[in-house]
Amino acid sequence: MSQAILTPIAHIHSDFSQKFGIPRQSGLVEQLTACIVFEEPFRNRDALRSIEGFSHLWLIWQFSEALVNEFRPTVRPPRLGGNRRVGVFASRAPYRPNGLGLSCVRLLAVEESPEGPVLHVAGADLLDGTPIFDIKPYLPFTDCHPEATPGYTAETIEHKLHVKYNEQMLECVPEEKRDALLGVLACDPRPGYEDNPDVEYGLAFAEFDIGFRVSGDVLTVTRIEPQK
Amino acid sequence: MSQAILTPIAHIHSDFSQKFGIPRQSGLVEQLTACIVFEEPFRNRDALRSIEGFSHLWLIWQFSEALVNEFRPTVRPPRLGGNRRVGVFASRAPYRPNGLGLSCVRLLAVEESPEGPVLHVAGADLLDGTPIFDIKPYLPFTDCHPEATPGYTAETIEHKLHVKYNEQMLECVPEEKRDALLGVLACDPRPGYEDNPDVEYGLAFAEFDIGFRVSGDVLTVTRIEPQK
Repeated sequence: MSQAILTPIAHIHSDFSQKFGIPRQSGLVEQLTACIVFEEPFRNRDALRSIEGFSHLWLIWQFSEALVNEFRPTVRPPRLGGNRRVGVFASRAPYRPNGLGLSCVRLLAVEESPEGPVLHVAGADLLDGTPIFDIKPYLPFTDCHPEATPGYTAETIEHKLHVKYNEQMLECVPEEKRDALLGVLACDPRPGYEDNPDVEYGLAFAEFDIGFRVSGDVLTVTRIEPQK
Repeated sequence: MSQAILTPIAHIHSDFSQKFGIPRQSGLVEQLTACIVFEEPFRNRDALRSIEGFSHLWLIWQFSEALVNEFRPTVRPPRLGGNRRVGVFASRAPYRPNGLGLSCVRLLAVEESPEGPVLHVAGADLLDGTPIFDIKPYLPFTDCHPEATPGYTAETIEHKLHVKYNEQMLECVPEEKRDALLGVLACDPRPGYEDNPDVEYGLAFAEFDIGFRVSGDVLTVTRIEPQK
């Protein structure tokens, strides 16, 4: 059984320094932007020639913070309440053999920078610093299957929370990141099986620590502070 | 720059013993069936629990016959005539860093076999014996983007050939494989830049050698023989 050795072609820079709060799939929070910086020798504008014609890209990457040594055949998706098990290959869970992630992101721009060409993307669900093994164009004629059945995820359609916040509190967050932050909070970052209005959660986003509580379908932001 | 070591979780068994003739993307020939047999220790029915609810699956696999040692930033897609270069990350070409393939297949059935659970799939564009690193469910709410722009592939919409054949000749092919073979031929297996009606091409499909010529948009099957 032959193994393969993969080398990161790039790393992503996102506003998530911790796993907590990352949307559970790509595209759920469209306002989230991130940039992809290539490694040598892949830092080459030619390798991206004609990529601007594609609105969406696939990223194949490594769940670098969720590597497992032992094979666990089942996982408990948080959105199923955390107590129902499904097969790991019937899930997109991070704890999986080979630890590969697959995300579809929207391509915003290709920038020439001192670090070589940089891809600016929207909708990424990747931790800051995640290694990327491949980038491919999204081809609607082969990748788009509106007729596909969603299996058990039909029961887990993402609910959105109503986010309550103090305008003044939000002002310390740069304007261009506010919608992304509110989008992340609306996705309900709590573990699926937790529902305690007294718990104050802490979320790291960009350079900020955000505190919040959830009661019913209302999330209330309790504090926004620069990270220490 | 940390590398990752990947271990195949499974291999696919398809009717393609050679690259020539494999449809250029998954799903183009829906009648093509293949089966996925797991390796130990992944030969575990639990790892597939609830997978039957999904009509489509992603396969992440290795272009095991197209591995490259050197980084080539551009490729020449055959469907652009073979003389226009695009960036390798703006293409789904096999010759790419890390040699990863991404295919969406339709799940037909999960079979219990002496070799463990076997996934029967349709639409696969994989060479027989291709190692598979991951299987994930297709999630329409995050993977389906009908609005995505197809870049230069808009110029390469797959043309279909009209396939002429002798009924008697086709009879040696098992009935359940005939539509798949005709579908493969209709996709025009020739290299994109070749157009010579005098050339007889040879295609290996299932246990057969198939000869054909193409003139204009008509493909004529010249022979079908059991492989020696």
